Amino acid sequence: MTDAGADMHALVERLYPLCRSITGDGVRATLDIIGEYLPLTRHEVPTGTPVLDWTVPEEWNISGAYIATADGRRVVDLADSSLHVVSYSVPIAETMSLDELRPHLHTLPEHPSWIPYRTSYYAREWGFCLPHDTLTSLAEGEYEVRIDSTLEEGHLSYAEHVVEGAVADEVIVSCHVCHPSLANDNLAGIAVAVQLARALAETGTHYTYRFLFIPGTIGSITWLARNRQRLDVVKHGLVLACAGDRGALTYKRSRRGNAEIDRVVEYVLREGDRPHTLVDFSPYGYDERQFCSPGFDLGVGSLTRTPYAGYPEYHTSADNPGFVTPAAMADTLGACLEAFGVLDRNRRYVNLSPFGEPQLGRRGLYESLGGRSDAKQAQLAMLWVLNLSDGEHTLLDIAERSGLPFETLVVAADALRAAGLLKE
Amino acid sequence: MTDAGADMHALVERLYPLCRSITGDGVRATLDIIGEYLPLTRHEVPTGTPVLDWTVPEEWNISGAYIATADGRRVVDLADSSLHVVSYSVPIAETMSLDELRPHLHTLPEHPSWIPYRTSYYAREWGFCLPHDTLTSLAEGEYEVRIDSTLEEGHLSYAEHVVEGAVADEVIVSCHVCHPSLANDNLAGIAVAVQLARALAETGTHYTYRFLFIPGTIGSITWLARNRQRLDVVKHGLVLACAGDRGALTYKRSRRGNAEIDRVVEYVLREGDRPHTLVDFSPYGYDERQFCSPGFDLGVGSLTRTPYAGYPEYHTSADNPGFVTPAAMADTLGACLEAFGVLDRNRRYVNLSPFGEPQLGRRGLYESLGGRSDAKQAQLAMLWVLNLSDGEHTLLDIAERSGLPFETLVVAADALRAAGLLKE
Amino acid sequence: MTDAGADMHALVERLYPLCRSITGDGVRATLDIIGEYLPLTRHEVPTGTPVLDWTVPEEWNISGAYIATADGRRVVDLADSSLHVVSYSVPIAETMSLDELRPHLHTLPEHPSWIPYRTSYYAREWGFCLPHDTLTSLAEGEYEVRIDSTLEEGHLSYAEHVVEGAVADEVIVSCHVCHPSLANDNLAGIAVAVQLARALAETGTHYTYRFLFIPGTIGSITWLARNRQRLDVVKHGLVLACAGDRGALTYKRSRRGNAEIDRVVEYVLREGDRPHTLVDFSPYGYDERQFCSPGFDLGVGSLTRTPYAGYPEYHTSADNPGFVTPAAMADTLGACLEAFGVLDRNRRYVNLSPFGEPQLGRRGLYESLGGRSDAKQAQLAMLWVLNLSDGEHTLLDIAERSGLPFETLVVAADALRAAGLLKE
Repeated sequence: MTDAGADMHALVERLYPLCRSITGDGVRATLDIIGEYLPLTRHEVPTGTPVLDWTVPEEWNISGAYIATADGRRVVDLADSSLHVVSYSVPIAETMSLDELRPHLHTLPEHPSWIPYRTSYYAREWGFCLPHDTLTSLAEGEYEVRIDSTLEEGHLSYAEHVVEGAVADEVIVSCHVCHPSLANDNLAGIAVAVQLARALAETGTHYTYRFLFIPGTIGSITWLARNRQRLDVVKHGLVLACAGDRGALTYKRSRRGNAEIDRVVEYVLREGDRPHTLVDFSPYGYDERQFCSPGFDLGVGSLTRTPYAGYPEYHTSADNPGFVTPAAMADTLGACLEAFGVLDRNRRYVNLSPFGEPQLGRRGLYESLGGRSDAKQAQLAMLWVLNLSDGEHTLLDIAERSGLPFETLVVAADALRAAGLLKE
Repeated sequence: MTDAGADMHALVERLYPLCRSITGDGVRATLDIIGEYLPLTRHEVPTGTPVLDWTVPEEWNISGAYIATADGRRVVDLADSSLHVVSYSVPIAETMSLDELRPHLHTLPEHPSWIPYRTSYYAREWGFCLPHDTLTSLAEGEYEVRIDSTLEEGHLSYAEHVVEGAVADEVIVSCHVCHPSLANDNLAGIAVAVQLARALAETGTHYTYRFLFIPGTIGSITWLARNRQRLDVVKHGLVLACAGDRGALTYKRSRRGNAEIDRVVEYVLREGDRPHTLVDFSPYGYDERQFCSPGFDLGVGSLTRTPYAGYPEYHTSADNPGFVTPAAMADTLGACLEAFGVLDRNRRYVNLSPFGEPQLGRRGLYESLGGRSDAKQAQLAMLWVLNLSDGEHTLLDIAERSGLPFETLVVAADALRAAGLLKE
Repeated sequence: MTDAGADMHALVERLYPLCRSITGDGVRATLDIIGEYLPLTRHEVPTGTPVLDWTVPEEWNISGAYIATADGRRVVDLADSSLHVVSYSVPIAETMSLDELRPHLHTLPEHPSWIPYRTSYYAREWGFCLPHDTLTSLAEGEYEVRIDSTLEEGHLSYAEHVVEGAVADEVIVSCHVCHPSLANDNLAGIAVAVQLARALAETGTHYTYRFLFIPGTIGSITWLARNRQRLDVVKHGLVLACAGDRGALTYKRSRRGNAEIDRVVEYVLREGDRPHTLVDFSPYGYDERQFCSPGFDLGVGSLTRTPYAGYPEYHTSADNPGFVTPAAMADTLGACLEAFGVLDRNRRYVNLSPFGEPQLGRRGLYESLGGRSDAKQAQLAMLWVLNLSDGEHTLLDIAERSGLPFETLVVAADALRAAGLLKE
């Protein structure tokens, strides 16, 4: 996992400088890089396309932006950080006084050296984000203000990667790709998703796993609109975000609260050694907001480390590659793999010999010498699986009720199936 | 509220001297006084009328009663306290020895200066209630015993006051008017009900609120018998009793245990600053016994301060106007108003745009500058209302699940309705 | 109960020496002795009979077994303990070296003076069980090894005793009779069952109680197979085992977890003064494994003192008559009698006058003098029974909800039934 951690961190660093937004070439360049790791199906949805209650907006691109003093010194320059411009800023090329400029400047007085992250997707505004220290150092006078952006008919870009499983039923793993130079939110989520897809492809899966690399909100709304007719195959899902900070894992339940993904992730976190927090669904955060809107109400939870808006560096330039660690990303990846390992093998079986215990000894499944009190766990597991496999209980239910490890129950179920005592 | 408290206490003092019972002129005089504050619909139900399993009893009236010594000194006199005679005592005019008299005398040896309250509605008895000190001071010898009462064909009297709301669905507020000179039980309940009716009429209500001023047990049974065909409009209810003592509020749940009135009162008590106690339904206490009998099983709870039989002064002369306070009655009134404020606006809405989040920004319901982590409560409230308005959850459910104030959710729901995003 | 305790212990001592197994004359001799206390219906089921997924095995009998040194000294002899031979050992008569013999010798090194209990019902093996001290004292050399056993076509033996109740619905009480010289497991269970049957017959019962004296596993499977068509009359059941050790009572719930027997036993244990433990069902232990297999899923719990495999003496020669006490068996018996006392009178009644309270006073069920705050428990009990008798709640439900003693509610229900206010 150490290698995976280093690989993921390298991907974060590589993606970090790009100036992403909900549309535009920054997203495309991001998907290009992800495409080097995973084969992607790319989608370009035209501006103006109605998507649920929304409309795909104009495409935004930016080639440069700065504020310069009268003598030509650039005090704020997009070249230094993709956070410097309010995302979706309309173009401007003017000279104005500091007082005229000030309403367009966003700072964080409580963290004077950090640049905040601000957007104005749906209101035609422009603005700059800068350290408060920079703002306070600005002298009165005239400034040249320039944003070389375009807001035009174009496309919303997103991509999918599918790990084909044994069945068509799908697990979606969604991560937003619209944030500019913010490492934890959400380059770490992207990096974990990439590694996760590769690992699942390697082991093979029961479910088909569909990875969504989409812009936040409008991206998931677009995806939902375009996949509305086939959502019945989406059985489970996970939104990955803030996947790399040093905090403990946080699992936010789906709106349903007891969806199978909720039960599975809770089980894996509880049984594992990872410190973690469980929180109930709330309609604020990442794209679980859309997947769990009441009309869809999908079984989609959200896995983060420190959650949405839960750390001071959130949505600031302090969320840089140094804020995320290989070990934290490896830990998130590990939790995902464990959870999907359980989800993928969680079945509801039916005992085909439910009247009394079947005679396991005759089938070589039970030790012949009786009377010993140290019954083996493998035998206990078979008895538990037989007793609770009434079409109601899943292996996870049985694991929780029996206290036996899920793995042991999978082995028992396989042996019982092979003996013709169990069917799916 | 101070004025309301003083007004309520003045009403208690005014009603206190009257000799009430479950029928008779004492009840009528009480209803006359209440009628000065609220327009009442008065009912007179003839003796012998079958009401559910019961029959309206003969009407009891009393003009005087005393025990006098041989030399004519009245040692017990109804003129001093309406508690002195066992309610529904048959008339008597005899001279008898103290030994003959003694079985008819009721005292409280543990509180020797207090007069107990006793009744014998359905057994033809007579008796006097007196301080134990008085009893022990009586010399042996002959006593003149006189009760000038009548038990005759007549009527059972009760009254209703209706605050017409926007809908015909009703909330009943019931208080018993049959107890003689007992302030907390139940003149305080009457006084709170009167103020509550006036306050609700002033603000206007969604539900129609029906106030019942009825004798205990036989009164609610009579009302239920006469309203049996229209009970489907009674959606919620509250029995008000012991509303004025210095103890904390006690809410006794309806038989259902999770009726909307239960949820609402519990919410208001929990969220407010009032110390309080919640107790489950039991088939003992006040008229909730009848409203919550299994054949009716109405969603009727009971609000008291110190509950039924929970204080030594209960059913004694120590439950006098000094035992109840303007502040306590004002507090009870406030809790009722808050509860009915929630009940009245508690709705189950349906999100008309349930697939993904609707675009609030387009409708001016969402701030345009994104990225800030301090999402405003009003916006959160809209997201919660949209997410949970699936026809299952009420605003109260949403308040409990989100932790947001009920008021904020009402405002959010109103805004969303105005924007066409929500319907009832 | 002291006499019952002594009687039960005497029965344990009497049954102790017999060499029982799942078939054979040891079981028959055991049933003969039980038959001296209770009339039994005896069953003999032929070898080869298919029973559910199993087949009745060959009958095993043994007349003697020993290991002797070359000079004829018997170092292990069945005559000393019925545990000395692995149950169902095939016959052998050979001379072999200690090294050849050793794989057939079973000891408990951690308890070197105890003889373990071992079986090999379904694999054709032979073996001896002996103290580890004996094993270590054996010199190298040749030993005469002899087991005079037969494994032949025959029968599986079991017996039933029925206490006829007022209704045909049955409660089964099951105890295994297949273990050789082990006192707690399960001679104590047998002894308690015998006393219980006698006590129930004496008092008379509502339910019919069917006592099963059966070999473990194959016996309950055989009984279930032969009674499959009439299992719908089996409403409740209890498996009795380990009923005599000094530990506290343990109740293991049925697979359903909230069957009436579970509720009843928990109530009796909780309300009584007995220290006790409640454990959820697990598919390991005694014959509840079969009764609670998913195809049958009967409401059968298991009552033990220290549970299955929960004490070091379990399945060893240390589980001897000194390990069980008259007081412990008397306590188990008492708990059973209390539980069946509740179970037998637990009814779901319907209030025939459910609209408002019926007028109890008119029927002589309510004291006539009103106003006193010390309502009598008997009256409260009637009000509770009336209020909750809606066809949903049993008397046990009402006991739990009201906090009133079950006995008081039974009396109240009887009075209300006599007054025509309640029907079953």
